[in-house]
Amino acid sequence: MGIPKPAAERLARLMQLLEQRKDRESPVSSAELEYITGWPSHTIRKDISFLAAGNDISTPAGYNPARLAQAINGALGFARATHNCCVVGLGRMGSAFLEYGGFHDSLFTLCAGFDSNVNRVEILRADIPLYPAFKMKEIIPRLDITYALLAVPPDQARQTALRLAECGIRGIVNFTPVMLSVPPGVEVEQVSVLDALGALAARLAVGDKT
Amino acid sequence: MGIPKPAAERLARLMQLLEQRKDRESPVSSAELEYITGWPSHTIRKDISFLAAGNDISTPAGYNPARLAQAINGALGFARATHNCCVVGLGRMGSAFLEYGGFHDSLFTLCAGFDSNVNRVEILRADIPLYPAFKMKEIIPRLDITYALLAVPPDQARQTALRLAECGIRGIVNFTPVMLSVPPGVEVEQVSVLDALGALAARLAVGDKT
Repeated sequence: MGIPKPAAERLARLMQLLEQRKDRESPVSSAELEYITGWPSHTIRKDISFLAAGNDISTPAGYNPARLAQAINGALGFARATHNCCVVGLGRMGSAFLEYGGFHDSLFTLCAGFDSNVNRVEILRADIPLYPAFKMKEIIPRLDITYALLAVPPDQARQTALRLAECGIRGIVNFTPVMLSVPPGVEVEQVSVLDALGALAARLAVGDKT
Repeated sequence: MGIPKPAAERLARLMQLLEQRKDRESPVSSAELEYITGWPSHTIRKDISFLAAGNDISTPAGYNPARLAQAINGALGFARATHNCCVVGLGRMGSAFLEYGGFHDSLFTLCAGFDSNVNRVEILRADIPLYPAFKMKEIIPRLDITYALLAVPPDQARQTALRLAECGIRGIVNFTPVMLSVPPGVEVEQVSVLDALGALAARLAVGDKT
C-alpha cells in the first residue's frame, strides 16, 4: 500500500523531531507526539499505521522513539546516508545557507554553490566549492547532487529551474516568489515569507474570535 | 461558527492567489482553484463553506474571484489595510529581507529592522529605519508593529522571541532552527530549509514507488 504524500511529509518531519529528542530510549506517547509536532494525535496514529511496522515499535507506555524513527526511515527509503544539495544564486539569501549550521547531523549535505556572476563566485568565502552557473551541467551529475535551493532573482527563476531539472535535480526548494512549473518527476517546495505571515495572520484572526 | 485554523490558513493563501490572478472578473471553477492551490477541490469547497457568504460569490460557471477574495477578507478580519512587520537579526538571512520586493502589494509592510550589533545597524543600507536591539521596547509599540521575522543566531532565538512577545509582537516567523515556546496569544510559524528538503524527499520517496 502506498503512503499518501501528506502523510509521508509528516512522517519525515516526525522522524527529524524524534532524532532531535534528547531522550532516545524512554517511550513517547501519542500526547507527547501531538505536543512536539502540533498535529492531532489521531492523525499521527493514522500516519504511523501506514508504516505497516511490526508490533515492536509500540508499548503500552507509548512508541519506542528509536524504532519508530527507524521504521519511518525504512518505509520512506531514506536508508541512503545522505542527499547532496546545491544552492543556486548566491545573493544575500543564497549565501546565508553557506553559513547555516543545520545541515550537520541531517540527511542532507550542502556540497556546491552556483551563481551566474563569476566575480561573486570568486570573492565569496565558503567551506564548499562555488562555481559559475554555466558549470551546473558538469558539476551536478559529477557530485551526484539531487536537491537544489533556488535563490536567484525572480526574473531568472523559471529558466534556472528548468536547467536544474535538465541537470538531474529532483527536488527544488524555491525561495523566490515565482510559481515554478517543472517536468514530471521533479518536485518543488515553495518557501515564502509572505505565506508564513499569511498563515500567522489567519491563525491569529480565528484565534481572536474563539 | 468558528473557522478551524487549517481552513483559515488555506483561505488566507487562496485570497493571496486570487489577488495575484490577472483576470479579476471571469469566474474561477473549483478545478482551476485545485490547480492553482494544489489542494483537492472538495477541501476548497469545504473551506469556502465556512465563510457563510451570500450566494453572490458563486455562479454556475464558478466563483466570482473578486467577491470570493472579499468574503475571505471579511471572514478573517483582514479589513485593516496592512500589518506592520519588523526583521530581527540583520545577518545574511535577515538583511536579505531588506531587499525583498514581495512585500509591495501584500497585506504586510516591513517597517523596521533590529540587530544587537550597533555597528551593523549603522553600516547596512536599507530603505527602512534600522535600530539597535535595545530599542525594540520603544519602537515596536510606537510603529504599531505586530509581526516579526526572527533571523538571529540560534543561541539568541529563545530569549529574543520572549522579548518580542513582551514588546507586543503577536506573530513570529522563525527562520532559526530552534523550537520556540512563546506566551499564549502569540503564534509562531517555523520556516526551515531542512523541513522543506525533508518534505521533498518524502514526496519523491513515495512518488518513486507508485
